[in-house]
Amino acid sequence: MAARLGIGMVGYAFMGRAHSQAWRNVAAAFDVPLRPELAAICGRDPGGVARAADRLGWAASETDWRQLIERDDVDLVDICTPGASHAEIAIAALDAGKHVLCEKPLGNSVAEAEAMAAAARRAAPGALAMVGFNYRRVPAIALAASMVADGALGTIRHVRASYLQDWLSDPDAPASWRLQRQTAGSGALGDLGSHAVDLVLHLTGLDLTEVVAVTETFVAERPLPAAGGSGLSATAAGGSVAVDVDDAFCALGRLAGGATVTLEATRVATGRKNALRLEINGTKASLAFDLERLNELVIDEGDAAARRLLVTEPDQPYVEGWWPPGHVLGWDHTFVHEARDLLNAIAAGVQPRPSFDDGLRVQRVLSAVVDSAASGSWQKV
Amino acid sequence: MAARLGIGMVGYAFMGRAHSQAWRNVAAAFDVPLRPELAAICGRDPGGVARAADRLGWAASETDWRQLIERDDVDLVDICTPGASHAEIAIAALDAGKHVLCEKPLGNSVAEAEAMAAAARRAAPGALAMVGFNYRRVPAIALAASMVADGALGTIRHVRASYLQDWLSDPDAPASWRLQRQTAGSGALGDLGSHAVDLVLHLTGLDLTEVVAVTETFVAERPLPAAGGSGLSATAAGGSVAVDVDDAFCALGRLAGGATVTLEATRVATGRKNALRLEINGTKASLAFDLERLNELVIDEGDAAARRLLVTEPDQPYVEGWWPPGHVLGWDHTFVHEARDLLNAIAAGVQPRPSFDDGLRVQRVLSAVVDSAASGSWQKV
Amino acid sequence: MAARLGIGMVGYAFMGRAHSQAWRNVAAAFDVPLRPELAAICGRDPGGVARAADRLGWAASETDWRQLIERDDVDLVDICTPGASHAEIAIAALDAGKHVLCEKPLGNSVAEAEAMAAAARRAAPGALAMVGFNYRRVPAIALAASMVADGALGTIRHVRASYLQDWLSDPDAPASWRLQRQTAGSGALGDLGSHAVDLVLHLTGLDLTEVVAVTETFVAERPLPAAGGSGLSATAAGGSVAVDVDDAFCALGRLAGGATVTLEATRVATGRKNALRLEINGTKASLAFDLERLNELVIDEGDAAARRLLVTEPDQPYVEGWWPPGHVLGWDHTFVHEARDLLNAIAAGVQPRPSFDDGLRVQRVLSAVVDSAASGSWQKV
Amino acid sequence: MAARLGIGMVGYAFMGRAHSQAWRNVAAAFDVPLRPELAAICGRDPGGVARAADRLGWAASETDWRQLIERDDVDLVDICTPGASHAEIAIAALDAGKHVLCEKPLGNSVAEAEAMAAAARRAAPGALAMVGFNYRRVPAIALAASMVADGALGTIRHVRASYLQDWLSDPDAPASWRLQRQTAGSGALGDLGSHAVDLVLHLTGLDLTEVVAVTETFVAERPLPAAGGSGLSATAAGGSVAVDVDDAFCALGRLAGGATVTLEATRVATGRKNALRLEINGTKASLAFDLERLNELVIDEGDAAARRLLVTEPDQPYVEGWWPPGHVLGWDHTFVHEARDLLNAIAAGVQPRPSFDDGLRVQRVLSAVVDSAASGSWQKV
Repeated sequence: MAARLGIGMVGYAFMGRAHSQAWRNVAAAFDVPLRPELAAICGRDPGGVARAADRLGWAASETDWRQLIERDDVDLVDICTPGASHAEIAIAALDAGKHVLCEKPLGNSVAEAEAMAAAARRAAPGALAMVGFNYRRVPAIALAASMVADGALGTIRHVRASYLQDWLSDPDAPASWRLQRQTAGSGALGDLGSHAVDLVLHLTGLDLTEVVAVTETFVAERPLPAAGGSGLSATAAGGSVAVDVDDAFCALGRLAGGATVTLEATRVATGRKNALRLEINGTKASLAFDLERLNELVIDEGDAAARRLLVTEPDQPYVEGWWPPGHVLGWDHTFVHEARDLLNAIAAGVQPRPSFDDGLRVQRVLSAVVDSAASGSWQKV
Repeated sequence: MAARLGIGMVGYAFMGRAHSQAWRNVAAAFDVPLRPELAAICGRDPGGVARAADRLGWAASETDWRQLIERDDVDLVDICTPGASHAEIAIAALDAGKHVLCEKPLGNSVAEAEAMAAAARRAAPGALAMVGFNYRRVPAIALAASMVADGALGTIRHVRASYLQDWLSDPDAPASWRLQRQTAGSGALGDLGSHAVDLVLHLTGLDLTEVVAVTETFVAERPLPAAGGSGLSATAAGGSVAVDVDDAFCALGRLAGGATVTLEATRVATGRKNALRLEINGTKASLAFDLERLNELVIDEGDAAARRLLVTEPDQPYVEGWWPPGHVLGWDHTFVHEARDLLNAIAAGVQPRPSFDDGLRVQRVLSAVVDSAASGSWQKV
Repeated sequence: MAARLGIGMVGYAFMGRAHSQAWRNVAAAFDVPLRPELAAICGRDPGGVARAADRLGWAASETDWRQLIERDDVDLVDICTPGASHAEIAIAALDAGKHVLCEKPLGNSVAEAEAMAAAARRAAPGALAMVGFNYRRVPAIALAASMVADGALGTIRHVRASYLQDWLSDPDAPASWRLQRQTAGSGALGDLGSHAVDLVLHLTGLDLTEVVAVTETFVAERPLPAAGGSGLSATAAGGSVAVDVDDAFCALGRLAGGATVTLEATRVATGRKNALRLEINGTKASLAFDLERLNELVIDEGDAAARRLLVTEPDQPYVEGWWPPGHVLGWDHTFVHEARDLLNAIAAGVQPRPSFDDGLRVQRVLSAVVDSAASGSWQKV
Repeated sequence: MAARLGIGMVGYAFMGRAHSQAWRNVAAAFDVPLRPELAAICGRDPGGVARAADRLGWAASETDWRQLIERDDVDLVDICTPGASHAEIAIAALDAGKHVLCEKPLGNSVAEAEAMAAAARRAAPGALAMVGFNYRRVPAIALAASMVADGALGTIRHVRASYLQDWLSDPDAPASWRLQRQTAGSGALGDLGSHAVDLVLHLTGLDLTEVVAVTETFVAERPLPAAGGSGLSATAAGGSVAVDVDDAFCALGRLAGGATVTLEATRVATGRKNALRLEINGTKASLAFDLERLNELVIDEGDAAARRLLVTEPDQPYVEGWWPPGHVLGWDHTFVHEARDLLNAIAAGVQPRPSFDDGLRVQRVLSAVVDSAASGSWQKV
């Protein structure tokens, strides 16, 4: 029987629900060397967190994340809070010898990310840290990464990565913590752009050496949300809140070796719901992916034939935990895969990827985007 | 706090794993009035079922389904066995006052299905029975059904339903219990065709009045599987097993009101993995669906515009339990939806759908297909 | 310089315009051994046909097709009239030693088609006859045919062919000659179904041995068209006209060798404009085609990868006459290809395909569909 | 009967063939007020141009474009030569009082384009000039333009335009005049990028105010073509030719009003044959287009429904000249539409669009791209 690994989670909103599902299901889907136990969940509101614990399957609840870290039954701290608190919690947990899974983006600044990466380096290998770029665990993306690594695309010449959503298209869409720099660090850039940047770096295995960028806030003021729960920290004047993060960013860049890159993230692309789109053109082949059809990967080999792979075959990444061919997976399965890989890495005592150093690398790109948008000039990463 | 409902499951293979996942997760995803408890799981191999219980989250295991039914902590019996044992287990469970969820097809014959439907009628409302046509719970299908019911398609003129897989395209693909009449009842017809028939009836709300059909077994003998676990009951001669079920069926039919129907299911459609495809043409609009892209529903309104709906909006069926728009669901989410609806029906004391009578109605169509293929003539249903 | 071949065309409506364009352009696009000269066009209305001649590029016009046939400058008679006059014109032209291109379906009955095929046999090789199933000349279809012939699909197990349009979805869509048996012979069956049947036979290279079918006229009476030009021969009562042809047919069949076939054509599939859809499943691979995306052919080879071929490469059929890769062709290019192949066959003195015998073979299937729909039983072809 | 307009064409390669087809067919497809007569075609090789005249339907041939301009039977000069000769020919023709249709890009430099635009202004209205951005005449693009103009998209926030081909992916693909600055002016930028820029300006109706860009030549030397006809002007050393134009460019820009723009063109996007892709996100709706499926336009209205319009309805732009719904058009039909619109403008004495001023506006953007790539900084247009 597999050994137990006690999980303590901070935060129980969107990401907390998705991660809880992963911890509940990973050992049923996959042969994992460690059996996660949902020891305790933490949130500031005692009633809310107790209800979340009951509903999401956690044995206990806490209201202070420092208490959570100190619990003997917590071996791994899973951080699902807004970016502003990532650094403090992650560093404390790692310093306390606990493994850490931290949602993306790693922190709200390069300085925070550097401190976190330093903490991860000094905690290893006793405590291991991973950042939650879950899209690396979409089977189609994992397959794409291995194809690129195997040379199937040849030399990469062009990369296009965009992450398009539209929940802020409407100027009357309400404010939330995601629209405030103090909590979220940035807007579409950190929330969506960080995924796009991580995937460009991960899929190509190359550094993004320089960027030139614009950021834009199309709607500078938004109404307060009707009900609470928005996590807004700012005082609102006259029923509206100033938006101090970007609605969108758009960048041009270069990979080591000379490939061109276009990068974009937006929350105002009307009609796009969750369109993380990737396209890589290599000398031998091209690939294309859209998160709205995440079971599919399109490969072009120069013969005018786009091969739409349905990535649900048993020998494709992660699929062995699931169902027969054609029984498609959803967005949330990626978190189960993430949990599997993290448990495997902890059991083997090896560094899980994406590491905090990987997270830092993304943060440096986000920072270069901000600097370029401010200065109007190319920025080295 | 919600009352508990003890679940006992028979079978722990493909469907058992999918149903276990549903019971583990339904109360986290949805506000359900009854909290399922995974009380006990049953299988013939003591070691195998014990390991399955541990892995899938069941508190206990049994090796005799009669014992399972008698357990006080089992309020609902979930039957995930091959079709041959459905009738016996379901009738015993219902007669013992237990609720029943039974995988499809309901039975292996009309006689079995009639007996099961009769048992369900006499057990109600104290014990309620549902048959597991889970595809009714794909959000896009549920949305389609409500659109048809609301008259959005107008009068229905044509229906096309096909369920295409290819795992038997290779003549050397091995035999299993699914290729033997004694256990499976039929081949593609019962396994895949039953889903297609149920959806035609469910989506249109109409009876299929008559059919003419062919069935075909393209590969009459198949090798024994390399390892065990195939559930084969027949003695094999010379390393190969005779196949006595259909690889495919193909039918033409009529709905009440005169609409034409083409119906097809096959396991030898090379390249199709899980392509359950539906198309309905009405006087006002048409709709199309493919299970390989189950988050999408295509609506044509006669203006040369095919509207591809991404059915992940919070006000669409079942989506409120999950994630923001564009965060797509997988095949297995349908079982969570099925569990939710069953728990709701039990709590409310109302008949869940699809009922055993619905399952019987499908069985009559399957039987008419077999009769027509044998006689070469149109068959009334 | 290439020798001249004088063309005489009968009819100048939809098909007449499309064929004229082909004759005007074929020698510019392709190296053809005979240069077509648009000698004369024939229609009953003197003013109308004169205007058509001027506009479409014909040197002269005639009002009597018998005169057209007798002209010395007419070597080939191109018949673009409704089906009812095909037999008389084609037989007269062939008997006069003129080559014939005849629009599909060949005739309005098997008897007519037999007489036409007999005339073609006795006229050959001095005069050659071809029937205008132009979709054989879609590059993607021609490529598909050669792939099947080369064994790329292995043994064929399933064929699905449907031709879906919607211009009669609206019950108030007006009547025309296409809705009258006397002129059109049948409805969707002959107009659209003949294409589908021809392609099934052509692509598979197999005979359709038996069918069972239904036909349906959903709207039995339609209003008179607002203006003239409908070609209606019947007297209309009270402003409406009885429809005595099918709106749709639907059939189940068998190919020699046992493959199943579903065949369908309809004019009431709301939202489908010109959706001739083909799908063939073989033991090695499958292919799919939709005329609404006629530059594309989808090949599935059993590895869960659908290869979407963009059939615009210079080494693919007919493409050498046109543009660089990716510069897509339209529906009307098929007639240019048809003209090219006919000119090549005439110059070489070989039988062009599809021959009148091919057209007769289609007609026998259409007739079997009608007979089966009437008798309710399987019908040998 | 319509008056005649004599056409004289310079060049008979790819574009010459496409334009000839347009002049041959426009009066059959559309009711045009002037009937084009294919008077004379001009090329340097006497034998080649005579054969082209015969094949493409021209009454005469010339070997000196100055002679062509002087012919009395030439009212309009259609320039289908490489960019290097556009300015000289166009200015001479306009100064001689002849109408001009000039292929894109207008010239090889802003200076040339300015001189051409000046010539066009002084020749009007007696002689009218148009530049051949034929993609404005794709029905789906024309429909998109009218939708944007009517406000259907609301305020535009993002534009993505890329034109991807792959005929230079292979480093061994041979050199041609298209890879030499002296003849072609630039590479992907002028050839493909000019189309993308024109469509961004045309569709949005906005100015592109500033850009930052990179250009790249991935393969700096290419082999000589096997046969002649490449139009190479440079002396080749050792069997290979230096490439002094871009294989690709990539730019970031701003539209007046603040919308972000990504612009890209490349000849090394493996697997893309003719993928001119456009996406515009507005506050009310988004639209998407791909030239490889040029009959389709996708509209997203924020309700998670992508409406794929099949732009073949009789009331959509240009469709009235062709066929019933669903009978799709090809790439070359755009030239027929261009010819129609030019004939209409000439007959009405109004300035056809895109005018030489429109062409100049595109040229200024191309120039800003080159300057930005050289300087590494944002460039005002």
